[in-house]
Amino acid sequence: MNAMEEPPLPYDVFAKACPSRGTLEHVTGRWGALTLGALQEGSLRFNELRRRVDGVSEKMLSQTLQALERDGLVHREAQPTNPPRVDYELTPLGHEVAARLLALIHFVEGRMDSVLAAREKYDETRAPRR
Amino acid sequence: MNAMEEPPLPYDVFAKACPSRGTLEHVTGRWGALTLGALQEGSLRFNELRRRVDGVSEKMLSQTLQALERDGLVHREAQPTNPPRVDYELTPLGHEVAARLLALIHFVEGRMDSVLAAREKYDETRAPRR
Repeated sequence: MNAMEEPPLPYDVFAKACPSRGTLEHVTGRWGALTLGALQEGSLRFNELRRRVDGVSEKMLSQTLQALERDGLVHREAQPTNPPRVDYELTPLGHEVAARLLALIHFVEGRMDSVLAAREKYDETRAPRR
Repeated sequence: MNAMEEPPLPYDVFAKACPSRGTLEHVTGRWGALTLGALQEGSLRFNELRRRVDGVSEKMLSQTLQALERDGLVHREAQPTNPPRVDYELTPLGHEVAARLLALIHFVEGRMDSVLAAREKYDETRAPRR
């Protein structure tokens, strides 16, 4: 078989060097996941986003938005107003990613009673470490 | 309305103090996501897992498995053999979480061509920073 006929290798997050691993981390990282989730509800300004994503610093939110914009998941729209106003919204691809992410988030939220019960049982059966 | 009649607050990952945020991070963190994904295919021993989750250190895999076990998503089974053998497998809840996570992972892998094209366009339209 001619090398030129080989199909391209598929993307695989399990491979350390695959770029899909970086994108998965932008999407599922602490702030990336919450930012995509917040924007699934509609476009938001920077400060609105910052209030919605409880606990995020200005710097982290800015870095998070930049990574998501670079990956083509978030669109940044600077309005020519004074003072300048910047809106963030999901791209069509961002909406598709966010929908799958929210399915996971809502599932986890819905099973937290089981998770907390499991934690209690785990902690009970282990002697405290000193 | 009597305070005692109020329904419990639902879990909400957007709230900083909600325990669901920690569980989401165990599930979607770099190593947590890959560990759940690997175990969705069947039970694995520690060293098998370590090979499958390319790039993880022994220490990080061990911490990851412990957090997932505590949350009730992974079951650890120590076999009474010599040398001792430890198998890890998903619990039923872990399988449900992993299925939603893999839907997200496979979607991201399948759209990496668009993501990489977006990155190229983003980088082209911005002057290099010095």
